[in-house]
Amino acid sequence: MSTPILPRRRPGRPPRLDSSGQDGRERLLRAGLELLTERAFHSVGLEELLGRAGVPRGSFYHYYASKDDFGLEAVDAYGRYFAARLDRRLLAPGRSPLDRLADFVADAEAGMARHGFRRGCLIGNLGQEMGGLADDFRLRIEAVFQDWEARLADCLSAAVAAGQLAPETDCPRWAHLFWIGWEGAVLRARLVRNGAPLRLFFETFLAALPRPPSFPAEETPCSTPS
Amino acid sequence: MSTPILPRRRPGRPPRLDSSGQDGRERLLRAGLELLTERAFHSVGLEELLGRAGVPRGSFYHYYASKDDFGLEAVDAYGRYFAARLDRRLLAPGRSPLDRLADFVADAEAGMARHGFRRGCLIGNLGQEMGGLADDFRLRIEAVFQDWEARLADCLSAAVAAGQLAPETDCPRWAHLFWIGWEGAVLRARLVRNGAPLRLFFETFLAALPRPPSFPAEETPCSTPS
Repeated sequence: MSTPILPRRRPGRPPRLDSSGQDGRERLLRAGLELLTERAFHSVGLEELLGRAGVPRGSFYHYYASKDDFGLEAVDAYGRYFAARLDRRLLAPGRSPLDRLADFVADAEAGMARHGFRRGCLIGNLGQEMGGLADDFRLRIEAVFQDWEARLADCLSAAVAAGQLAPETDCPRWAHLFWIGWEGAVLRARLVRNGAPLRLFFETFLAALPRPPSFPAEETPCSTPS
Repeated sequence: MSTPILPRRRPGRPPRLDSSGQDGRERLLRAGLELLTERAFHSVGLEELLGRAGVPRGSFYHYYASKDDFGLEAVDAYGRYFAARLDRRLLAPGRSPLDRLADFVADAEAGMARHGFRRGCLIGNLGQEMGGLADDFRLRIEAVFQDWEARLADCLSAAVAAGQLAPETDCPRWAHLFWIGWEGAVLRARLVRNGAPLRLFFETFLAALPRPPSFPAEETPCSTPS
């Protein structure tokens, strides 16, 4: 969770830097991402957000038109942040494609463990409270999932090319399935405060992936990431 | 969602019936379950709840010590309501165990479709916003999942006994995995407003279940429920 989050700037709106050199907009976003990975959007008040970001009261509407506008920006920022985190693992050189996916899972579990399994996925959190959010959120959240799925589908296609998966593997389908199950596993890991649900899900996912006919069933395709 | 919800009464607290003969406590609970399958607990205000339940202002604290007390009761009530709904399918006579599970999945999808895929699982919703809820909630929500898992594990054991699953099937493990993935699938079905994620998850779950050696892999064990 230590990757810097760099929000996309709106054209023609130069950043306002405070004494620490940080843009208030960026500090609000960073504080928001911390709060929204733990809690419901509705439970986060503007006062709390401003206090955490160290941004003076009254500045909020300088940066954002509304709390929803802020929330939508947070969805995009988290989507980009997490996409970069995914790519760091899924595009890592010197590892087989399925090992790279296993590295991502181990990395995500370690990240959750660092926060005592209190933080989840901002996209999953917001997706869950969707009934109470504007329709914009639904579309934006689904777009983030589709972006993550495309990255994973590419990794699975690389696994097909490397002979780790069967040639007929429907990579987009399996990538879709991964994110469906992953969000459920993150939810459950937070409930039990440990990584067992993440591991159970991933282990079953790996075992269910179609293997090439010559692939020996007993051999584990992924070494445990270090 | 039309099964009547009958909250467990507290000892020594007789129900107050209104002109419609319904207990205010029960009406609050029913309104709460409707609201909390759609939205975040934090976004549901007492005013809205009272209005929806048709319970006069000021009565809330006659029934519940706090909003959290109400939320915990809602978790239990939903847990029982859904357990009954599960059992109706999982214990249905005249169907094979895996067909009964398929019936539950079809029933759940039809239930979501009736509400335009706007309502999800109250337990999943509350579980997701857990970071902002008292620790009581976490334990109570996990207990509900474990109860549902035990019911499903019994159904899977019946499938082993019926020769639909391999004798060595770890039924509690697969039941745990089912609920992990199911909650993710419900979340996603609400985002895309259709049942495809539920079906994709269940289809993959069924295909991944360990089959007895003699079971022909090409044969679909579950007929499509009518």
